Amino acid sequence: MNKLTHFDASGQAHMVNVGDKPNTHRIAIATGKITMLPETFQMIEAGSHKKGDVLGIARIAGIQASKKTSELIPLCHPLALSHVSLDFQLNSEQSSITCQVRAETTGPTGVEMEALTAVQVALLTIYDMAKAVDRGMVMGNVKLLEKSGGKSGEWKAS
Amino acid sequence: MNKLTHFDASGQAHMVNVGDKPNTHRIAIATGKITMLPETFQMIEAGSHKKGDVLGIARIAGIQASKKTSELIPLCHPLALSHVSLDFQLNSEQSSITCQVRAETTGPTGVEMEALTAVQVALLTIYDMAKAVDRGMVMGNVKLLEKSGGKSGEWKAS
Amino acid sequence: MNKLTHFDASGQAHMVNVGDKPNTHRIAIATGKITMLPETFQMIEAGSHKKGDVLGIARIAGIQASKKTSELIPLCHPLALSHVSLDFQLNSEQSSITCQVRAETTGPTGVEMEALTAVQVALLTIYDMAKAVDRGMVMGNVKLLEKSGGKSGEWKAS
Amino acid sequence: MNKLTHFDASGQAHMVNVGDKPNTHRIAIATGKITMLPETFQMIEAGSHKKGDVLGIARIAGIQASKKTSELIPLCHPLALSHVSLDFQLNSEQSSITCQVRAETTGPTGVEMEALTAVQVALLTIYDMAKAVDRGMVMGNVKLLEKSGGKSGEWKAS
Amino acid sequence: MNKLTHFDASGQAHMVNVGDKPNTHRIAIATGKITMLPETFQMIEAGSHKKGDVLGIARIAGIQASKKTSELIPLCHPLALSHVSLDFQLNSEQSSITCQVRAETTGPTGVEMEALTAVQVALLTIYDMAKAVDRGMVMGNVKLLEKSGGKSGEWKAS
Amino acid sequence: MNKLTHFDASGQAHMVNVGDKPNTHRIAIATGKITMLPETFQMIEAGSHKKGDVLGIARIAGIQASKKTSELIPLCHPLALSHVSLDFQLNSEQSSITCQVRAETTGPTGVEMEALTAVQVALLTIYDMAKAVDRGMVMGNVKLLEKSGGKSGEWKAS
Repeated sequence: MNKLTHFDASGQAHMVNVGDKPNTHRIAIATGKITMLPETFQMIEAGSHKKGDVLGIARIAGIQASKKTSELIPLCHPLALSHVSLDFQLNSEQSSITCQVRAETTGPTGVEMEALTAVQVALLTIYDMAKAVDRGMVMGNVKLLEKSGGKSGEWKAS
Repeated sequence: MNKLTHFDASGQAHMVNVGDKPNTHRIAIATGKITMLPETFQMIEAGSHKKGDVLGIARIAGIQASKKTSELIPLCHPLALSHVSLDFQLNSEQSSITCQVRAETTGPTGVEMEALTAVQVALLTIYDMAKAVDRGMVMGNVKLLEKSGGKSGEWKAS
Repeated sequence: MNKLTHFDASGQAHMVNVGDKPNTHRIAIATGKITMLPETFQMIEAGSHKKGDVLGIARIAGIQASKKTSELIPLCHPLALSHVSLDFQLNSEQSSITCQVRAETTGPTGVEMEALTAVQVALLTIYDMAKAVDRGMVMGNVKLLEKSGGKSGEWKAS
Repeated sequence: MNKLTHFDASGQAHMVNVGDKPNTHRIAIATGKITMLPETFQMIEAGSHKKGDVLGIARIAGIQASKKTSELIPLCHPLALSHVSLDFQLNSEQSSITCQVRAETTGPTGVEMEALTAVQVALLTIYDMAKAVDRGMVMGNVKLLEKSGGKSGEWKAS
Repeated sequence: MNKLTHFDASGQAHMVNVGDKPNTHRIAIATGKITMLPETFQMIEAGSHKKGDVLGIARIAGIQASKKTSELIPLCHPLALSHVSLDFQLNSEQSSITCQVRAETTGPTGVEMEALTAVQVALLTIYDMAKAVDRGMVMGNVKLLEKSGGKSGEWKAS
Repeated sequence: MNKLTHFDASGQAHMVNVGDKPNTHRIAIATGKITMLPETFQMIEAGSHKKGDVLGIARIAGIQASKKTSELIPLCHPLALSHVSLDFQLNSEQSSITCQVRAETTGPTGVEMEALTAVQVALLTIYDMAKAVDRGMVMGNVKLLEKSGGKSGEWKAS
């Protein structure tokens, strides 16, 4: 019962058969965080409402990455995303930026991977744009917050 | 002096001009970790030397993702990777798996982003393959460990 | 009411939510033109019914590009094209070639961008194949001619 | 009646209009074989249950390639695969490995090309991984075994 | 002498052999324009220094597209871009936006196609983001302004 | 000595380190064949000098696929192709078409996989375009004919 569904009975990987699953409206929300030096944080914060818009570019990178999920994750099914949005929270005490992604589709498989992929690539894009001034940034706490739709129904991180 | 080099003087993003930088041998080592339930950890650990080889698939996904870095990260330069390898450490007390990536090139730009992208996609692939049994896995501590080559020379995480 | 729908209330870009839109049959027709030297025009015209088939290659490039639209245009939704065709008109007095593309899908979003992307990449391919003899070619008058399907219904260029 | 449907009446290539075709459950099974030196065969066979897992990697490459079919084959329609699996048969007398792929979708077009593309790329991946010891390997007998679904219904190779 | 170099003596397309060409520093500058309704122009202009940053997103789309040029244009050689930048000029009397792209590489082939592809995709992205309010926008005057490097040396549009 | 170089000492796959290999001029020639019904052969033969140019499209598909080799074959290095050409031989007695590909680069790794990938995708494209009239076509005898360049020097199929 509790097993890794991406392998068949003989232990070989396959793309799981979802042909019998009904199309349902599915939502996934994922999050992640990048922590940096205070000076780096201030540069990015300054740019977000003037010029040098790091977060605007990370948002676009995250949206585009979500569309590439099935190319990046070997056993993911291709799916038609109906919505993706990214939201950034700036936490000045921690010098960290939190990225939250909401992804939606109507289909036979969930969008958890699309949401998580968007988080990871958005964080990587922030790292890329600030690495010349701060190579020690750390990305973490990347996880699913909640999902709904499909047979397993609603789930929320505890 | 300390500024975000991906923006020009007027604050517009560009792909930084590396035409004048010499080709040097460049190495980057990055790491990251995924933490899970003990039962999930045991399933993955069992598969790694029998059937259901989650880590073997995550390794391939990471290598392929490193080749897609300049497609995923908007301002990254395309570069010719000369080496990529991924190493997984299984920590049974923590029920976590650490992924370490080494990427190399000979060129005018560094391979930090290629190493970090491989880490992120390898962790995402582990998440994907085990999510049916454990949606609460958390990815974190993703960071550069060291780099060498180029004008800025050697760097190690403190 | 009249606003840029790709931004939310706070001005942040997102992939618009089309989850509630019904699947309808959608058609878009777009056009564009490339103008060149008379000698270049004659070379391409000669090839189109003998050897050196520039337009045959541009047609394939346009079809393939239409399938990459959601990869190229950041906020485009991925969609399942059900038809794409390209038609070239050779205008010898003007030494110009007009490309007209028809794209169709059944889905919740329109195919205008797929048609326009096919036009642009077909024109670029003609430029590429003839640039060794004529670098001064100009591409222009790229626009939507008509669309149908969806809530906004039929539209024709005036 | 018997004609190449990828060309219109004037002989121009197009992506065939499938807008009027109903969505049906479609299955395609394809196969192919790579023949090698006995020593190469033994190395691959040894790896498949210990370390150096050539076939595990070829399986992943085949699955990922099936998702890229419409990018590779110019006039293929993009489609949402609902299942892909690869099976390898090791024939030690012939020193050959047979790859069989099953692909499924529910949609207006068949999945023959997805199954065949997975076979070809899985065989190429085996070639790549063993070419340092055996450049003379030959790939062949790549063909469709059977298909079902759609207007043309069931078909089996004779 | 004056012939379409992408075809061999028998008229078959090929990727031209550049193996004997020396690596030189190459620059290409291309331009193009999109014309719209005055109301559309004002919306985009407003966004460029506040929220709803259409041009910031078009800039990123253009840079990413330049990296995909050899995927889009069938006979283009892959090359390692060393620099790409996009500049937008807003012409309020004409209600038009001009996009100018500069692309650079050090290699055996020119970067004209990379610069032109970035222009076309940046214009398409502007169209996409404003099409809900203005379907009649027209893209045009897309052309090479100048190039340098390589055997043919410097060239400027007359 | 004779071992699968894509695995390290512990049997884990990696992208082999080519950082120390010199750049040399490398050539690979590969071939493959597709066999069909006589009626199918005649249709394709007719198209190749009139309208319905199956082989012209297969040629373009092969060239484009060669540029995607490192995306398709997991452990392949990305490389800058300097030349690709495809040649088709029509054998009317056998109702078969042979595709021969020549690929070249100057770099640290060989182009065998690029040549073989172009063969496979060209054959698949022929299959795709004729499958509506002949599902039983068989692709085979896909192999390397010769290679030169690099440490292992010249090699020819016996």
